[in-house]
Amino acid sequence: MAQKKMAIIATKGALDMAYPPLILSSTAAALGWEVQIFFTFYGLQLLRKDLSRIHISPLANPAMPMPVPMPVLLKAMPSMEAVATKMMKAKMKKKGVASLEELRALCQEADVKFIACQMTVDLFDFKKSDFIEGIEFGGAATFLKFAGDTDVCLFI
Amino acid sequence: MAQKKMAIIATKGALDMAYPPLILSSTAAALGWEVQIFFTFYGLQLLRKDLSRIHISPLANPAMPMPVPMPVLLKAMPSMEAVATKMMKAKMKKKGVASLEELRALCQEADVKFIACQMTVDLFDFKKSDFIEGIEFGGAATFLKFAGDTDVCLFI
Amino acid sequence: MAQKKMAIIATKGALDMAYPPLILSSTAAALGWEVQIFFTFYGLQLLRKDLSRIHISPLANPAMPMPVPMPVLLKAMPSMEAVATKMMKAKMKKKGVASLEELRALCQEADVKFIACQMTVDLFDFKKSDFIEGIEFGGAATFLKFAGDTDVCLFI
Repeated sequence: MAQKKMAIIATKGALDMAYPPLILSSTAAALGWEVQIFFTFYGLQLLRKDLSRIHISPLANPAMPMPVPMPVLLKAMPSMEAVATKMMKAKMKKKGVASLEELRALCQEADVKFIACQMTVDLFDFKKSDFIEGIEFGGAATFLKFAGDTDVCLFI
Repeated sequence: MAQKKMAIIATKGALDMAYPPLILSSTAAALGWEVQIFFTFYGLQLLRKDLSRIHISPLANPAMPMPVPMPVLLKAMPSMEAVATKMMKAKMKKKGVASLEELRALCQEADVKFIACQMTVDLFDFKKSDFIEGIEFGGAATFLKFAGDTDVCLFI
Repeated sequence: MAQKKMAIIATKGALDMAYPPLILSSTAAALGWEVQIFFTFYGLQLLRKDLSRIHISPLANPAMPMPVPMPVLLKAMPSMEAVATKMMKAKMKKKGVASLEELRALCQEADVKFIACQMTVDLFDFKKSDFIEGIEFGGAATFLKFAGDTDVCLFI
C-alpha cells in the first residue's frame, strides 16, 4: 500500500484553532503518513518562536463551554481574553493535553514539513528571525502541487 | 463504480456553522455515499440531546446579513445574541429550512456515522448522558484511517 | 497525467477569509487545474457586484497583527471595523496584493466556475441582480457530485 499523504492549510492563530493542525499532523505522522502544513494568514503565528501571544477569545463564540454563564459585554472586558486563555491552558494542562510547543516539536521530530506562506510574511512584515528553525518559505502554487497528490487535504 | 466516501471534521458549535456538516452529510448520504462525521472541539455541542443552546453571534461577523445596519457596540449588548439567534431561526423556519434536530435525525436514519472526539469529551467534562443515542466515541487516529480512503474530506 | 481538479466551498464573507478561495482558485487555474467554487452562507457576499461591504473585524480575533496593541473594548467601538478594514486594504495595496475584485476577475478569466448556493440565496432574500454576471445557481447535491471526483476539496 502506498504511503498516505496529508496537506493542511493552517490559517487561524487563536488558541483553540491552533490545536487542530498540530494534533492532526502529529497523529498522521505517527501513522506513517507524509505530512506538510502551509501556514498562512493568522496561521503564521504558530511558527513564531514565542507562542505566548496565542490567545483565545470568548467573544463571538457562543459555543465555548464557560464555567459560568457570562453576558456578552462582560466577555468584552479588556482582561477577559487573558482570563479565558489562562483558564483554557490550565484546563488542558490538568487534563494532560500537550501544549502547542510540545505538539509542534513532535511534528518536527516526525518530519512534518512546515512551510510559511511568503506572501503573508511580506504582508504582515514578519522577520525570518521571528520564526522557529527548520521551516521553509514558499507560495501557494508549490504547495498546491503537493496537495494535488494527497489523500487528505484540509483548510483549517 | 465504487461507493463514494466523505469524512467531515466538525469543530464549530455556533448556529450558522452547525448547519454545513449536517446539510452536506445528509445530502451525500442521499446520493448513496458512506459518510462519517468526527465531532470535536465546539462541534461536540451538535451531539447534545438539547440543541437549544446552539446560538449565533452577530459579533465579529461583519458579513452576516442583518435586517438593519447595526453598530458593533449594539451587537455586544447582552440580549443581542439571543435576538440574532431567534431572528435566524424564524427566518429559516419561514423559508422551509429544516431545523438542526431534523437534519441530525435525517443523517442518523441514512446511516451517517457520528463519532464524538474522546479527548474533547474529557477536556470539557461532558457526560455521555449529555449526548444523543447511536453515537460512537473515538480518537483522531481511528478517524484519520477512514479519512485517508475518502473521496472528500472536509474540516468545518 | 489527468487534469487535476479542485472544489472549494466558500462560506465566509469577511475580508480576511474572502481571500483564500480566490487566491487558491486563481493559482490552481494558473496551474491548469479545473476549479469550481460553491458560494454558500456568508460566502455569497463574494459574488455581489459591489464588494465594498466586505469588512474585517478585529473583534474576537486575538491573532490579527495590529500596529499597536489594543484593548478588546476599543476594538468594539463602532468605528473600529471600518478602521481595521481600511488599514488592512491599505497594507495589501502597498504590498502589491491584488484586490478581491481583481482576483475574482482573474478566476473568471481562467474559467473557474462560480456557483451560488440557491438555498442561501432564498434564505437571505438576495436578488439575482445583486450578483456579478457569469455565475450559476445550484444546490449541494450537484456540487458534491463534482467534488467527489476532485483531487483537492476544501471547506473555507
